[in-house]
Amino acid sequence: MIGDARYTVDPWGLREIGLNMEDPARAESLFALSNGHIGLRANLDEGEPHGLPGTYLNSVHELRPLPYAEAGYGYPESGQTVINVTNGKLIRLMVDDEPLDVRYGELRSHRRSIDFRDGVLVRGAEWESPAGQVIRVVSRRLVSFSQRAVAAICYEVESITDAPRVVVQSELVANETLPPHTGDPRAAAVLESPLVPELHFARDCSVELVHITQHSKIRIAAAMDHVIDGPGALGVQSESEPNSGRVTVTGVLKPGQKLRIVKFMAYGWSQQRSLPAMRDQAAAALVAAKETGWDGLLDEQRAYLAEFWRRSDVEVEGDAEVQQAVRFALFQLLQAGARAERRAIPAKGLTGPGYDGHAFWDTETYVLPVLTYTQPGAAADALRWRHSTLKLAQERAQLLNLRGAAFPWRTISGAECSGYWPAGTAAFHVNADIADAVTRYVNVTEDYGFENAVGLELLVETARLWRSLGHHDLDGRFRIDGVTGPDEYSAIADNNVYTNLMAQRNLRAAADAAKRHPDRAYEFGVDAEETASWRDAAEDMYIPYDDHLGVHPQSDGFTGHEIWDFQHTAQDQYPLLLHFPYFDLYRKQVVKQADLVLAMQRCGDAFTCEEKLRNFAYYEALTVRDSSLSASVQGVLAAECGHLALAHAYLREAALMDLHDIEHNTSDGLHMASLAGAWIVLVEGFGGLRDQGSVLGFAPRLSEGLSRLSFGVCVRGRHLRVEVHRTSATYTVQDGEGITLTHHGESFRLEPDKPATFPIPPIGPTEQPHQPAGREPLFFHRPGTTEED
Amino acid sequence: MIGDARYTVDPWGLREIGLNMEDPARAESLFALSNGHIGLRANLDEGEPHGLPGTYLNSVHELRPLPYAEAGYGYPESGQTVINVTNGKLIRLMVDDEPLDVRYGELRSHRRSIDFRDGVLVRGAEWESPAGQVIRVVSRRLVSFSQRAVAAICYEVESITDAPRVVVQSELVANETLPPHTGDPRAAAVLESPLVPELHFARDCSVELVHITQHSKIRIAAAMDHVIDGPGALGVQSESEPNSGRVTVTGVLKPGQKLRIVKFMAYGWSQQRSLPAMRDQAAAALVAAKETGWDGLLDEQRAYLAEFWRRSDVEVEGDAEVQQAVRFALFQLLQAGARAERRAIPAKGLTGPGYDGHAFWDTETYVLPVLTYTQPGAAADALRWRHSTLKLAQERAQLLNLRGAAFPWRTISGAECSGYWPAGTAAFHVNADIADAVTRYVNVTEDYGFENAVGLELLVETARLWRSLGHHDLDGRFRIDGVTGPDEYSAIADNNVYTNLMAQRNLRAAADAAKRHPDRAYEFGVDAEETASWRDAAEDMYIPYDDHLGVHPQSDGFTGHEIWDFQHTAQDQYPLLLHFPYFDLYRKQVVKQADLVLAMQRCGDAFTCEEKLRNFAYYEALTVRDSSLSASVQGVLAAECGHLALAHAYLREAALMDLHDIEHNTSDGLHMASLAGAWIVLVEGFGGLRDQGSVLGFAPRLSEGLSRLSFGVCVRGRHLRVEVHRTSATYTVQDGEGITLTHHGESFRLEPDKPATFPIPPIGPTEQPHQPAGREPLFFHRPGTTEED
Repeated sequence: MIGDARYTVDPWGLREIGLNMEDPARAESLFALSNGHIGLRANLDEGEPHGLPGTYLNSVHELRPLPYAEAGYGYPESGQTVINVTNGKLIRLMVDDEPLDVRYGELRSHRRSIDFRDGVLVRGAEWESPAGQVIRVVSRRLVSFSQRAVAAICYEVESITDAPRVVVQSELVANETLPPHTGDPRAAAVLESPLVPELHFARDCSVELVHITQHSKIRIAAAMDHVIDGPGALGVQSESEPNSGRVTVTGVLKPGQKLRIVKFMAYGWSQQRSLPAMRDQAAAALVAAKETGWDGLLDEQRAYLAEFWRRSDVEVEGDAEVQQAVRFALFQLLQAGARAERRAIPAKGLTGPGYDGHAFWDTETYVLPVLTYTQPGAAADALRWRHSTLKLAQERAQLLNLRGAAFPWRTISGAECSGYWPAGTAAFHVNADIADAVTRYVNVTEDYGFENAVGLELLVETARLWRSLGHHDLDGRFRIDGVTGPDEYSAIADNNVYTNLMAQRNLRAAADAAKRHPDRAYEFGVDAEETASWRDAAEDMYIPYDDHLGVHPQSDGFTGHEIWDFQHTAQDQYPLLLHFPYFDLYRKQVVKQADLVLAMQRCGDAFTCEEKLRNFAYYEALTVRDSSLSASVQGVLAAECGHLALAHAYLREAALMDLHDIEHNTSDGLHMASLAGAWIVLVEGFGGLRDQGSVLGFAPRLSEGLSRLSFGVCVRGRHLRVEVHRTSATYTVQDGEGITLTHHGESFRLEPDKPATFPIPPIGPTEQPHQPAGREPLFFHRPGTTEED
Repeated sequence: MIGDARYTVDPWGLREIGLNMEDPARAESLFALSNGHIGLRANLDEGEPHGLPGTYLNSVHELRPLPYAEAGYGYPESGQTVINVTNGKLIRLMVDDEPLDVRYGELRSHRRSIDFRDGVLVRGAEWESPAGQVIRVVSRRLVSFSQRAVAAICYEVESITDAPRVVVQSELVANETLPPHTGDPRAAAVLESPLVPELHFARDCSVELVHITQHSKIRIAAAMDHVIDGPGALGVQSESEPNSGRVTVTGVLKPGQKLRIVKFMAYGWSQQRSLPAMRDQAAAALVAAKETGWDGLLDEQRAYLAEFWRRSDVEVEGDAEVQQAVRFALFQLLQAGARAERRAIPAKGLTGPGYDGHAFWDTETYVLPVLTYTQPGAAADALRWRHSTLKLAQERAQLLNLRGAAFPWRTISGAECSGYWPAGTAAFHVNADIADAVTRYVNVTEDYGFENAVGLELLVETARLWRSLGHHDLDGRFRIDGVTGPDEYSAIADNNVYTNLMAQRNLRAAADAAKRHPDRAYEFGVDAEETASWRDAAEDMYIPYDDHLGVHPQSDGFTGHEIWDFQHTAQDQYPLLLHFPYFDLYRKQVVKQADLVLAMQRCGDAFTCEEKLRNFAYYEALTVRDSSLSASVQGVLAAECGHLALAHAYLREAALMDLHDIEHNTSDGLHMASLAGAWIVLVEGFGGLRDQGSVLGFAPRLSEGLSRLSFGVCVRGRHLRVEVHRTSATYTVQDGEGITLTHHGESFRLEPDKPATFPIPPIGPTEQPHQPAGREPLFFHRPGTTEED
């Protein structure tokens, strides 16, 4: 009956009307629930039809060999892949003889929604069985922000027409069969039956299963318990097997009668703790959850989110889709980071198996700037996770003949899992990205305790890496040769501008932090000679410039390369990496994702305004945006350069990446960096937030498509709110003390209860840059034409 | 009894006294027999103990998947590996109860030798069985130069002390068990049981086995027949099974009596022909061989070699080891190329499974220059093989988004088998190397029929490749970006000088050849616009130069890179690629093998004498010679730069690579390119042969260690001989008409029967270049100190 699903544009929620039975995976990602610790894809309660069944526990992974046609020294031999663990979402329903399966009988209506203010996935379905019985099912699912080991489902079934006997089977299932691998290198490798059963137990309404992964030896305890409420005499029984456990409830429902089952789930996992300890841990969490009760969990969830939105909500007027998308984005970033607590925030959060569940530089470069201003504790925890992997990074540096720490390009546990070194190991900028996230976090929060305990060592070890990675040439310039910058359509080049500028900042930040914490620095063996050598290297850092063209080459020699033949590249040949060899891409001027433009965003003070304009135009013509990491960066610089309509288009592309499934892989999980990008374009682009100096600055200016923008940021213990209109901007201290800020370069003091309003200086007309043929941002309408959704 | 083997220094042969039972593989390579079509490692007649059993048929290979941790567009999915085919070398001997096995009883003496003038491997052993019987075995083995499908063994056993019953089992065995793979990426992958039996047949003294490879579907027929001669009534029987066949001869030998068995073997293989056709082919070859008889085969072998040595012998006085080594080298190159006949000449010839049996650019760059001057027909055949793979190379170019033909980095059949593109696909110079071999062959032979039929198309298709691979920059320079030059410790660089100079020559040679063969060029779609665009690109070719240092950078930016820390690199950290990641090697100034120096050898006219001196000294200090392809090139340039003692040391290193097992991997097969290098240093280095212009030139000059050098070259139908003494050189036309040559730059006309003698101009003292610490050539004694062996 319901051929496809429709999504509504709501300011505070995501709502799906209908159900796409052919391709359910996209909605499974969009409606995924997570608290950063546990992740549940939005698989249907009854399990089928499914796209990708997914229950993820942060950092639970299996190892797999990394094969090489021709091996080389230092290549990682083992990869890590996120695994689908014991599934506790399953609740199957039998109506008389017929199992509820939306593919059979008639699905009269199907709706799913999440309200970002309560964080509950609500599903309502009305179904007529092949035998003609009509029932209504309403399930509510949450992954608790307040009790991080807990998820819960409130499942209600109501008979509409008849008095059928219903049987509800609530299950825990391990080693579910997964669909075969697609062959797309970006999709995760599928591992069959990764869980080895260790224990199963059933009693009353509860079941426990303990498993251990075969190679990575991570022990996982999953437990469930139930509160059952229904008419008449209900039969209840429970049973367990090594790979499954089941609680079965049966009764007869007269028309209008409801059976309500609240299912509490708890997970615990560890690479070190014993089986009894893990079992107890899950059981304890379960008791606490049951004690809290469904309504209690709901209340906690709402309270947690209310505080988040109070601080961090972004209001957008003039573009309803962006309003929805930026709240969706903030909600998803919160879901990814809220309770990750010293575990990684993967590129897909815990919403899908894409990229094998790995974390990349995306976390520090895109996700952490947002969390730093909106949920700073989560940003600190993510950096504590990096710090916890320092030993592995030091060993990796040593293997690479370098000093300090070399953090992995992609990982779950901290070990390098990249099997292609030119776009992995060689992308050393990840180390400066981590250092930059530390610097930003400390600068924004003034959390010097964190700097002392965690940040300094990260800065020192990355500075040491850069010092050994670069060298002074005969002209006294400090060069960093043979590395790969952010743009993955270039590799192994000398003096990548982004890398060199970020390394420069890394070296200086380490020296500054060592000065602030001299005793701690002494513990790490830092002396004045060493910090001087960092400052000298930073001072001498070589930044190539093409005098002839008047632009910065992305790396040495880049602007001499042949320009990609965009004219003869068909639209179906994008993404280029699936249709052309790296060899061809690397040697030509074609940019997958912002690289020099990212340098101008992150290190804006290293460029003059004129350079920014020229560089932006030059790289805009070369950038094909085959990466979801690019639109937001281009959006920020477009806004800074005065190309406001273009910035708005990039905002929409970043913000709608998953809601519109722009790259056709939302099914594998959500693009956390692109979601972060929605906030980044609004706040850094249209809000003009810049935090590279000691004083936080704003240079707000809206596109024609926006009539009002309001956002909150946490800065040095204060909550600030910035409200931008077309001609003026108002700054308010929501909580905390006064602060000095800048507005379009003019410094001012903002006091509590004294909002300050300033006019926005007008800008003249700008010459529009051009993109490669057919690679304009989606949704782009040049100024003067009508903007449409 | 015999703990190790000893090799004697003989001018005309290789002789081993004793037997190394612990590590027999090295001798198996050194004494391997081949005619380029069939290759037999020198496994003992009785099969064991063995290092690597090896019977190879040129181009017979199996396919294996090439795995990637992270796959990419255009990566080859399938690799090719040479396989050990049906072994016909096996002749087992039972003396009463005891099998002849050198590990048991007492091996009283053991000798093996090859005389380069008859090409027969002679083995003599005297063995006392555990029971005390003493027998003498003499076996003679040859792979026929005259009958390319044929090998033969003359096996004699003589009783010394007693009258034992002897049983001789002459066998054909398929799918022999091979020793496990070493894990060294340079050693061949071992494939288990690659042969699927199709037919076996035994009758009288003959056996036939037909197999087909499982994936590559190459059908292989192996057949043997015997002539038996011995005292008294000999029992003879034959039998066959799917994977083996046996002819058994038994008799009683009184002291002094001999049993003599001549075993004829024939092989045929094809990917297309039917089983009956293959069976008939092998049977026919066998009949012809048996008809010729053992003595007849011996006579043919001697005659073939006599003609070769008459033309091509190199006489060296003053260094007996080099005298032996250069004849060993010429003999091995002849064995590798003589009858390859439109099949590849692999890097190891047919002497072992090293490098998976692949052919590389080594063939065109090192082996073909030697064959062009000594056995030109074999050089032409090797290029005909390349031509036969043109379609695959065109398809590869298309896949890479290029025009023309992109020949593979490593292959057996012509398909790219390189699983690491930065050091495979990106090393495009292989195409210019092929073109250069064509140009040299035509220039030296004036074989314009070959040029018309084969050479022109190779030149045109490689020129098209270069034209599409390079582009003009804004300054009008023709650049070739993002490629890998010969030095494997650098990769993916812009404007590699070697590559650009060779591409320049390729473009010009194609335009010249198209002019000589306009009708044929028209068939290939070449018009005047296209040849003009080749000439223009060649004219505009960009050759980077470092004005500051006054040297050519190997590639753009090379001389700005950090210099490798040779001082802190331990000797046991060589070869560097086994102890440091590519990442580290690529970004520093460290050279695995001659690259810019090879450019100066192959394109000497592009450099002034002063540039050569400076460049040579600069790169000498960076070159670690972790490749066997380097010593000869450094030797030639050392000689040209007047560093004659150094040149002599490089000569010795190249020449003795296998005889002294310098890289400890002779066991996997002989280093054909290094063997060729022995000839190259003598003829191009000390003989000063240069063939880049229209007139062949010589600039001979001997090192102190040499008192006389004489070599023959085939040029334009003539056989010339050049005899160099310390102060003069004499040129003679051995066969054919007069010719114009140059001696140290002075042109002269050489007429038949009128040898011309010229003095060698003296040179002044030169400043000795330095090598990285510990990486001086082996055998190097700075002038003034005593040279030792």
